[in-house]
Amino acid sequence: MIVSKQRGIVPRKIKGFRDIDVSLNQLKLQIIERASAVYKSYGFEHWDTPILEYADCLGKYMPDDDTVDKGVYAFSNPEIEPVYATDGEPLRDESNDVIMENAFVALRYDLTAPLARVYAERLWMDYLRGQVKVGKAPLFRRFQYGPVYRYEIKLAPGRFREFWQLDFDSVGTSAISSDAEACMILSDALEAIGLKKDTFRIKVNNRKYLKGFLASLGIDKTEAEQDILRIVDKYDKIGLEGVKAELGAGRTDKSGAKIVGLNLDKTLVTGIYDFLNQFTEGGQSRKEIISRLSKIDNAIAQEGLAELQQMDEIFDKLNFGEENVIFEPTLVRGMAYYTGPIFEVESLQTYRNKRGQKKQIGSICGGGRYDGLVQQLLGMSVPAVGASIGVDRLAELLILTKQVPEKADGPVFIANFDDNLMLDYQNIARKLREKGVDVEIYYGCHKGFRGLKKQLSYADRKNCPVAILIGGDEVEKGIATVRNLKLGKELSATITDKREWRARVQKEIPLDSLSKYVAGLLGVYLV
Amino acid sequence: MIVSKQRGIVPRKIKGFRDIDVSLNQLKLQIIERASAVYKSYGFEHWDTPILEYADCLGKYMPDDDTVDKGVYAFSNPEIEPVYATDGEPLRDESNDVIMENAFVALRYDLTAPLARVYAERLWMDYLRGQVKVGKAPLFRRFQYGPVYRYEIKLAPGRFREFWQLDFDSVGTSAISSDAEACMILSDALEAIGLKKDTFRIKVNNRKYLKGFLASLGIDKTEAEQDILRIVDKYDKIGLEGVKAELGAGRTDKSGAKIVGLNLDKTLVTGIYDFLNQFTEGGQSRKEIISRLSKIDNAIAQEGLAELQQMDEIFDKLNFGEENVIFEPTLVRGMAYYTGPIFEVESLQTYRNKRGQKKQIGSICGGGRYDGLVQQLLGMSVPAVGASIGVDRLAELLILTKQVPEKADGPVFIANFDDNLMLDYQNIARKLREKGVDVEIYYGCHKGFRGLKKQLSYADRKNCPVAILIGGDEVEKGIATVRNLKLGKELSATITDKREWRARVQKEIPLDSLSKYVAGLLGVYLV
Repeated sequence: MIVSKQRGIVPRKIKGFRDIDVSLNQLKLQIIERASAVYKSYGFEHWDTPILEYADCLGKYMPDDDTVDKGVYAFSNPEIEPVYATDGEPLRDESNDVIMENAFVALRYDLTAPLARVYAERLWMDYLRGQVKVGKAPLFRRFQYGPVYRYEIKLAPGRFREFWQLDFDSVGTSAISSDAEACMILSDALEAIGLKKDTFRIKVNNRKYLKGFLASLGIDKTEAEQDILRIVDKYDKIGLEGVKAELGAGRTDKSGAKIVGLNLDKTLVTGIYDFLNQFTEGGQSRKEIISRLSKIDNAIAQEGLAELQQMDEIFDKLNFGEENVIFEPTLVRGMAYYTGPIFEVESLQTYRNKRGQKKQIGSICGGGRYDGLVQQLLGMSVPAVGASIGVDRLAELLILTKQVPEKADGPVFIANFDDNLMLDYQNIARKLREKGVDVEIYYGCHKGFRGLKKQLSYADRKNCPVAILIGGDEVEKGIATVRNLKLGKELSATITDKREWRARVQKEIPLDSLSKYVAGLLGVYLV
Repeated sequence: MIVSKQRGIVPRKIKGFRDIDVSLNQLKLQIIERASAVYKSYGFEHWDTPILEYADCLGKYMPDDDTVDKGVYAFSNPEIEPVYATDGEPLRDESNDVIMENAFVALRYDLTAPLARVYAERLWMDYLRGQVKVGKAPLFRRFQYGPVYRYEIKLAPGRFREFWQLDFDSVGTSAISSDAEACMILSDALEAIGLKKDTFRIKVNNRKYLKGFLASLGIDKTEAEQDILRIVDKYDKIGLEGVKAELGAGRTDKSGAKIVGLNLDKTLVTGIYDFLNQFTEGGQSRKEIISRLSKIDNAIAQEGLAELQQMDEIFDKLNFGEENVIFEPTLVRGMAYYTGPIFEVESLQTYRNKRGQKKQIGSICGGGRYDGLVQQLLGMSVPAVGASIGVDRLAELLILTKQVPEKADGPVFIANFDDNLMLDYQNIARKLREKGVDVEIYYGCHKGFRGLKKQLSYADRKNCPVAILIGGDEVEKGIATVRNLKLGKELSATITDKREWRARVQKEIPLDSLSKYVAGLLGVYLV
């Protein structure tokens, strides 16, 4: 039987998007402030870019996917504008009219692609005039934080479609020492946020090395290389046998879904398998890994290896030992724009999930070198390196492992018993605020509905330390009743007699010394 | 002659969007931090909501426009989902299959509509179960800041399509004292940001009064009322005669464009004109305005008037005099959701534009009561009031009137003369950072391109206070050359002899006392 219903509006968020409440905001801001201070201490300046960008400026670098439409939120700009040629002039049709279109725009999927746009845009006119030469592009070091957007069709638990990143990047440097510095910055930032150095590990690899290794097996087309790396990137999730299957004939996953394989030649699959298999047991030192990697006879691979060696030297000198930084030849990183050193920070902390199982949250930061990204926009090669902290991931880690700061005290609470006393309430509140005390007057009183119990439960939810209770009686006597809510909560564990409890936590104070008394009470807690 | 060209990518931002550099970011963050502290001091808690929302949840409240498609960035969600009925259950077709669609989503155009969604969503299940009663909805006070998006077809100079708002709202209160409080919060926040109290003025009006006044002229349909208010809202821009023309037969604007009028009855137009005309000269006290307004014999108007009186009483008691808060019966405010008191803060400061003309930036904050907004989503009336600071507008005001904080010192700068010394540079930098000093090593050295002049101009742009210069010679002697860039800049005005200048600002320091020496130098500036 069908009941005919009307279409309605259900108040709801888009799936994968969420509201951030006061506690989570406090935690997120703490992460951002502490990491930003570390980024600044290395000379990075705070910049910001729009959340919406032209899709062609962001490019096609999403992990697992090579199209603009998949994985990103993109739509047609309502404004109609000229189509541009490679020289920056509008394209014209046969009648010499400017060709117009509604260009595709997209919510940024990371903060790196917009950075490349900022850099290229600022240099664009000079470049067109021939005033910037390859190898002499200016250095630009900035940090940035904010939300990014990914339309992931299957949302794993704890993953979001809107999440915050906290990036720093150096554009205009080819120095591998800045790649090593990037790893150390991540480490310093995580320590500043409150993670102990032995609870996370930086994993480093090199895309040049991977590229050279694949070339040594005869794979030298970018597309084939990307396909293979996309599968190797899944190693953490599907294991070595899974990678092998997907490089070959494909496999069936747990849900029974068929995953099409690359159908590579058997020798090739074995070559890749054998290479990865050398590193699956872990525990090798950086030097051991460098020695194993040195066996591949390919110039690009050797270049990548030299970069790893250079980074190892810096880590040694600055006391980033094997327990802090490891080399991991199976590491790929999702984004297609990486070209040199790549790195990722893995949390080693465990927590118990709802079923009591021990779990790890995995990767919390990552980054690498992307020497080709700016070139896509500027037409000129500009080397660059950067890294990103996943703010929401890190916040989740701190919550799961119970490293969250105590909830801050709320405002002093003024209960509202009588609308005729509102001017007195406001006056008292104003005087207290002038002393630097936060104060909230309760405004939730609808007609005939102002019970103290309801008001105090509101104050409790907001963690208010003190309540000021003033009714008609009090005004007549020129006093206020002040209740120490914080002490009250403590004592309620030991004192069961209501009168005794009240005598301890509640006091009548003359109105003219109220501000001083309340400020004094809070002083105990604020110091 | 047509040259056939190829389509290219021009690195560019979408029109009306902008990058925020380090100075503007510093200013914006200062505004946000100081105002947030004031909001908190009144008991508001920091919340955040997604930038992308279902269009139906945001509703149709944009100024000047009544449709979702115009004025907002909206598009079809890539995810297909059920259509819901008014009871929250999926709608079904004749075959009992759930009806699916790609719902419209939109970039939020303000922070108030998402707040109503948050509130309604959290109460929705309880409401469906009948556990929340009208007049007993819980009180919720939050502040929030972040970007909002408006697709304005014509972009006036200094206006943006992405701009930041900084809102506070109280949902679940009908107390007019909280409306008065909202005005005082705006005032306190602006003072905290650094504006002197005599440089801005709070203008207050009441939508109920306007509604009642129009009803007294015979206009009682919401649509006609909104049309008229939309035109009265333009009073500041087009003047009283412009309003009169648009209420009647229409007019031709400066550009020669024809603006269609409402073609209202002449008596009606005269009635509205005469009403507004009483207040155009300004300078009347709040009491005088209340007395003039009291002449309209309409119950709703009288209700609005009583609210104005109540606010006046609070302003008097808390020393918000006529110079701070005025009543302005011509004030409308753009958003269609306002239902009671409305207010706006106008900056009185002037600046000279590029042509030397005296200008004012106008409105920098605004707000009001919106008792019907939550009802659109929850089906139950919940009274609410809130206000918003236009962060970018305010930043612009501070820049135009030269009230911008000095640019903060940059990091200590380590020049880079030799790649072989990189380990030394990094080591020195690390030691300084451990002492709390910000340090940047220059990485912009491409092969054979490391001139000191170029490096120091980079350091100058970043406002670096000190440079450390170490080449092969210095390392051999175990020293570093330290240049006091800040002192150097000061002295270069008076000392023209290069050797004398250098002797004053530059010193050779043994490497083992370098950290101490540099920290000491900075101490002078940091204290």
